[in-house]
Amino acid sequence: MATIKIAVAQHSCCGNKNENIARYVALVAEAANKGAQIIALQELHNSHYFCQTENEEHFDLAAPIPGPDSDLLNQLAQQHNIIIVGSLFEARGHGIYHNTAVIYAPSVGLCGRYRKMHIPDDPGYYEKYYFTPGDLGFTPINSPLGKLGVLICWDQWFPEAARLMALAGAEILIYPSAIGWTPGDIDDIKQQQLDAWITVLRANAISNGVYVLAPNRSGFEPDPSDQTAGIEFWGNSLIIGPQGEIISQAGTNQKTLLIADIDTRHNETIRRQWPYLRDRRIDAYAALSARYRD
Amino acid sequence: MATIKIAVAQHSCCGNKNENIARYVALVAEAANKGAQIIALQELHNSHYFCQTENEEHFDLAAPIPGPDSDLLNQLAQQHNIIIVGSLFEARGHGIYHNTAVIYAPSVGLCGRYRKMHIPDDPGYYEKYYFTPGDLGFTPINSPLGKLGVLICWDQWFPEAARLMALAGAEILIYPSAIGWTPGDIDDIKQQQLDAWITVLRANAISNGVYVLAPNRSGFEPDPSDQTAGIEFWGNSLIIGPQGEIISQAGTNQKTLLIADIDTRHNETIRRQWPYLRDRRIDAYAALSARYRD
Repeated sequence: MATIKIAVAQHSCCGNKNENIARYVALVAEAANKGAQIIALQELHNSHYFCQTENEEHFDLAAPIPGPDSDLLNQLAQQHNIIIVGSLFEARGHGIYHNTAVIYAPSVGLCGRYRKMHIPDDPGYYEKYYFTPGDLGFTPINSPLGKLGVLICWDQWFPEAARLMALAGAEILIYPSAIGWTPGDIDDIKQQQLDAWITVLRANAISNGVYVLAPNRSGFEPDPSDQTAGIEFWGNSLIIGPQGEIISQAGTNQKTLLIADIDTRHNETIRRQWPYLRDRRIDAYAALSARYRD
Repeated sequence: MATIKIAVAQHSCCGNKNENIARYVALVAEAANKGAQIIALQELHNSHYFCQTENEEHFDLAAPIPGPDSDLLNQLAQQHNIIIVGSLFEARGHGIYHNTAVIYAPSVGLCGRYRKMHIPDDPGYYEKYYFTPGDLGFTPINSPLGKLGVLICWDQWFPEAARLMALAGAEILIYPSAIGWTPGDIDDIKQQQLDAWITVLRANAISNGVYVLAPNRSGFEPDPSDQTAGIEFWGNSLIIGPQGEIISQAGTNQKTLLIADIDTRHNETIRRQWPYLRDRRIDAYAALSARYRD
């Protein structure tokens, strides 16, 4: 693989689906106009972050894949001749829903999907209510631009996920995200949380010698139940190189399109210098499959 | 466990063993005088970093444990009433040598040892020649101050090691280290390497909700074979909190004693907020024991 031009989109979302679609459609067109060959969209870009409350009606936001939401991504990929990494609420069967990322490529269509494996559940992030844990494992998706290790948000805190993708040949890890602050937390706490997020994303790049992309949601969304103060999605979308270097980073609030030229042959250079995959102690890792070692 | 006062020692080493011992003996005494209950010493603190060349005579630097080198650590622990995390070149049997960390505690004596599991080998770091890979696994050492996850230098790049220690109940990860720059590399490369090291250490804290200590060697040591430009050990020893926050950090060159009060009950607070151990997909991690997934 030679140099490729990548784009990472960041925007806020609202309760109006057509408006959310208009926002990322504009960013896809802009990326294509600037010569990007691939664009990564944020987590659940079609809607507000509906997991702030547990509400049965929100399951109506889901759609099958293929289905109308994924068809639009495919159409955009063909129209703009660009690979799109999208993030959808997948209706798989009656009562079976997933938080699913998809890749569509020009000519090819659907390259593959990833169903979020690690599902969070905290006040304001009730994802265990909506999303059945993924059953496709940590398997990179083959695309015309190489193997892409698509993971989703909460997965970023689990080095197991990044490692398994790298071991399976992923050259770029992509984390569509929707993460933010609790309004009212003091600035020091907010900064420490954002810093922790950036740090683990960078560490996933470093430990595995791969590029990492993290398109994250921005903007404030209120809690419809008024039980919490809502979420300030912290943006700060990232493009990270294989030694953890930050190639491009968005601000907190603005709609942003990050664009960078990367070359995954650089992974090989870095891995020759710091050859971690050579030295893993696979004879001593069995207990990673244990819940706890007490 | 309540608040504990911890110390992390950083100093340069030379070819004179007695001088090296004098340097860390002074830091142990200083730490005890300041009320520290535990001090962590850097990797292979008794000698210059002999792995810059492959030289059969260097095996003479090793000693059994217990033996004269470990006896001195034990004596210091008793004399100063302080727990010592030391790092020794262990002669285990004819032709069997390990890079071994030990913990000595007042009254208790030897609490346990850890034999370096991940062994590097790069120009100037010929550790595979000297050190048989460890066979004790990733097992925390019980000390009067709780379970301590002692790992060594290169281990820091392997999130598997940190995770296994945390799953076994380690409350603090301790990485005695000897890592540095190649003189002549440009400053940008040096900064990126140092930054990557700090980043993965912080990520090991974040992903596991544990404290991390990293005492690192400082100072320049020439290559006796003149084949390389030697090593500028980069110091920057660290004390890191369970959300990755840097509590204390040394400079690059100076002899330093970092001291901080920590409270491992804070691990519980952080893990309640970001409960990664709850959500691990232990049904999907088996391939972490694979060399590569091709």
